[in-house]
Amino acid sequence: VQLLPLQTGILEQGCDLGSVIGDAVKKVNIHLTESDILIVSSKVVSLSEGRVFPLANLSPSKEAKRLAVKLKDRSPEFCEAVLRETRHRNGRLLGTCKGAALTEVNGILIANAGLDCSNAPPGCAIGWPEDPPHSAERLRKALEQELYRVRIRCRVRTKPQPEPVVAVLIIDSCCTPRRRGLTAVALACSGLNPFLDERGDLDLFGKKLHYTTDAVADCLASAASMLMGNGAQGIPAVLVRDHGLQLSDFTGWVEEVPLEEDLFRDILK
Amino acid sequence: VQLLPLQTGILEQGCDLGSVIGDAVKKVNIHLTESDILIVSSKVVSLSEGRVFPLANLSPSKEAKRLAVKLKDRSPEFCEAVLRETRHRNGRLLGTCKGAALTEVNGILIANAGLDCSNAPPGCAIGWPEDPPHSAERLRKALEQELYRVRIRCRVRTKPQPEPVVAVLIIDSCCTPRRRGLTAVALACSGLNPFLDERGDLDLFGKKLHYTTDAVADCLASAASMLMGNGAQGIPAVLVRDHGLQLSDFTGWVEEVPLEEDLFRDILK
Repeated sequence: VQLLPLQTGILEQGCDLGSVIGDAVKKVNIHLTESDILIVSSKVVSLSEGRVFPLANLSPSKEAKRLAVKLKDRSPEFCEAVLRETRHRNGRLLGTCKGAALTEVNGILIANAGLDCSNAPPGCAIGWPEDPPHSAERLRKALEQELYRVRIRCRVRTKPQPEPVVAVLIIDSCCTPRRRGLTAVALACSGLNPFLDERGDLDLFGKKLHYTTDAVADCLASAASMLMGNGAQGIPAVLVRDHGLQLSDFTGWVEEVPLEEDLFRDILK
Repeated sequence: VQLLPLQTGILEQGCDLGSVIGDAVKKVNIHLTESDILIVSSKVVSLSEGRVFPLANLSPSKEAKRLAVKLKDRSPEFCEAVLRETRHRNGRLLGTCKGAALTEVNGILIANAGLDCSNAPPGCAIGWPEDPPHSAERLRKALEQELYRVRIRCRVRTKPQPEPVVAVLIIDSCCTPRRRGLTAVALACSGLNPFLDERGDLDLFGKKLHYTTDAVADCLASAASMLMGNGAQGIPAVLVRDHGLQLSDFTGWVEEVPLEEDLFRDILK
């Protein structure tokens, strides 16, 4: 497998993300190719869609002020934004630690309902895209158009196909219980099945596997996040090649595990 | 970044893992190189160290029988092994779901105290290595010897250096709350700092980062686990190249987060 970091620097609000990514690909002297998987940070997708919240405009509720006291070094305005975003996504507030509230939104356990101020324009927080599956699909189609433009110039093929030829994953960094540091989680994909089901397959000794499903999308997310970093790297996307995965026509949220199969169900209600 | 899967097929109990990995590297027509990171599954490390538990020998306690009823399709003998391993590591049993007990061992939340029957010899379970940091260090030194043997043949350099020239990570597959499917966790490393601390660094807008530590080892673990799979792939190790990470003289468990900084502390005591 090859992981190719794509550097863009600071993006403008409302920019055309497909073109930005296309340009970043050209900058490293490669072309988009069939079966490429593009992994992109939710933050730049939201930035391109204008999902940026100026915090000074918000007037904090009592609940936000109480939350700010608990989080210790977050402003009541930021906490107000977190509470609004949690409500907006029909989520829940589950706990707090220094600097972050643990929330469950769209079945995902995430700090601050996905809101973050780092790499956001000054005084602003950035959240998840309004509809990550839709954003993933739109970006996938934009990249496929880009790929076909190159092909048309090269006279290889002139008609886009109905099947996905590249895949897009939208990811966010996340925490794991008891673990120090950030990994990442895949919010949505388009063009790739987020899971590889090995149940019913045999192991090396011919024994049937009963429980084994690989969280391919989450593994890709963490792999890419390692290259992206969370500072001033300016790398909001990573291209994955030679991965051996089959693309699929799946577009959607990376769905959660059913409660009865959740290893953590007894401690997390 | 390049991730190169290393195929070994079925390994013998008590095999010399350094040689096995060395041979697998040659099979793909490459040489070990300075700064290579080898990611290896805890299962083959344990197999090479003979940490394999024949289940038929165990006589299940009442507690094991009760646990077997809760897990539904696990034998009382397997449950006995899980309880013994949990005690052996001064761990705790935290909950159950179908097929698995949630345990905390060495500060890591893991199914069945790290025991697993898939890809284990028939009738046996395999656990974690007795001392993962020690195993990682030993394997690192074996690989460095291998690298120097090649160098001596090529007359490049004759003396091993005191600093690590390759790194080794020992990983296991794991579950995440609310998420479907397996990712992976790094148990121990030798030759690499498991964390990249970005606190105090600036973001793209010059804002100081307050919370950002990247869990590099866990990200590498998940990236590699995607290539290893959990079935009959026979790929227990992955070589990572062109990663841009600096090796370090760290050898140890990948330590847990302090409780007060754990986003999940309120729901997980």
